[in-house]
Amino acid sequence: MTIQRPEDFRSSCRAGKFNTQTSGQCPGFAQANLLVIPINAAQDFIELCERNPVPCPLLAITKPGDPTVFTKGSSIFKTTTDLSTDFPKYNVYDNGKLISTQSDISKEWSKDHVGFLVGCSFSFEFALSKAGLTPRNMSQGFTVPMYHTKKYLDPAGVFTNSTYVVSMRPYKQKDIPKVREITKKFKPTHGEPIDWGFDALERLGINSLEDTIFSEPIELEEGEVPVFWGCGVTPQLAAAEVSDKVNGTIMAHAPGHMIVIDVKDEEVPFL
Amino acid sequence: MTIQRPEDFRSSCRAGKFNTQTSGQCPGFAQANLLVIPINAAQDFIELCERNPVPCPLLAITKPGDPTVFTKGSSIFKTTTDLSTDFPKYNVYDNGKLISTQSDISKEWSKDHVGFLVGCSFSFEFALSKAGLTPRNMSQGFTVPMYHTKKYLDPAGVFTNSTYVVSMRPYKQKDIPKVREITKKFKPTHGEPIDWGFDALERLGINSLEDTIFSEPIELEEGEVPVFWGCGVTPQLAAAEVSDKVNGTIMAHAPGHMIVIDVKDEEVPFL
Repeated sequence: MTIQRPEDFRSSCRAGKFNTQTSGQCPGFAQANLLVIPINAAQDFIELCERNPVPCPLLAITKPGDPTVFTKGSSIFKTTTDLSTDFPKYNVYDNGKLISTQSDISKEWSKDHVGFLVGCSFSFEFALSKAGLTPRNMSQGFTVPMYHTKKYLDPAGVFTNSTYVVSMRPYKQKDIPKVREITKKFKPTHGEPIDWGFDALERLGINSLEDTIFSEPIELEEGEVPVFWGCGVTPQLAAAEVSDKVNGTIMAHAPGHMIVIDVKDEEVPFL
Repeated sequence: MTIQRPEDFRSSCRAGKFNTQTSGQCPGFAQANLLVIPINAAQDFIELCERNPVPCPLLAITKPGDPTVFTKGSSIFKTTTDLSTDFPKYNVYDNGKLISTQSDISKEWSKDHVGFLVGCSFSFEFALSKAGLTPRNMSQGFTVPMYHTKKYLDPAGVFTNSTYVVSMRPYKQKDIPKVREITKKFKPTHGEPIDWGFDALERLGINSLEDTIFSEPIELEEGEVPVFWGCGVTPQLAAAEVSDKVNGTIMAHAPGHMIVIDVKDEEVPFL
């Protein structure tokens, strides 16, 4: 099912009626990733995003304890939004371990939790599609393949030794210049690819295209090569990895299961 | 010799009287790196800086063809400045090869050349010094050790496969939290270290602390570990490496030989 309006999408999620991956939903509107962390790590996280804008393009910040009020970035929503219910699915981490995946985190969102929205590469898929370069995850409705690389973020405060998560879409070598050109305009939603080609695997520290996380591997067709973009799942693994320093529960969207925001793909503002 | 006022420093360079490394010059005032490239690569370079603000924090951009007029970032100078004469030394690259090091590039600066100033880690050395953590390159007056790593920048346009250059200052392990805390405030001049400790060498792809570029290796003292910061020499190697796509001469400061600007270390604005 394809929902057209972002507010309808969010109310469907809130009512528990939409719970699948979101590539292709509300065509033309941007999507966003979520990270919810205790307030004691919030400033460090903001600095992590500032230092690493490609994997972590920050779009909005909530008031501590309130998933419906934004201290920054509120302009990306035109109608009421609740970040604890308006994603189709959430991951809940405790002590660095994924302990549950659930459709609502309103009970877990404590007075000390701050929510962050981060840009999502689904936001440029409609533009690729209009150019005849529809990503396969979009046309076939599966979760985009994701990989946890060995490419280090530049650290900030407690966030040390974090590495990029990347999304992968296969393209023919000859189409890569056009794919780069189209996606580079989408700066707050990861922009152009960070690497491409089979030799990118070694540069990124990916052992095999089979080693996906939160998603299934796909078969590349004849003549295709993998193309990798920064991915907004990066923050949740960065936070989970330093859970000894980030005291308290960490929550995030379930990868591939985004929120749709009220701005068009081309109009997403950086924070 | 230590010059106190940035305008005196720049006029000394202009007159050919100052030609050594600049760590410790004009204490309290910020320093900057230079890259001069043909205008056809200028927009791509701006995007490279936006995507990689830690190694490439952009401070100012000149009018094409004029090293004395700034289209952006002019507020960092209060008196007349000429980027083609006011650095103590310059590197000139042709076809990706360093062809000369000279004290003046006014003849080489063509109508198609655009100059970019990028933040410099010397700008936080005075703050470290005030905290009793004077970097050895500053106290002993040698060029800070620099390394060309295998850590990839996120690409932008023609700038692909570029890797970080880092500067290294040795510190005792126990002092690292304080060193991070002091330098993190200097966001447009590389901010906190990107990595530290002997195991950072593997993460950064540095084979040995002997493998310096544009500088000499130093002996670490008992109990010290290397601490690495993003370095504004990164852009000149990034540009030299894609010289087949950046048509024309590329120029830059000679590493360690900066310009001093008219703003205090703590007050440097990002572009």
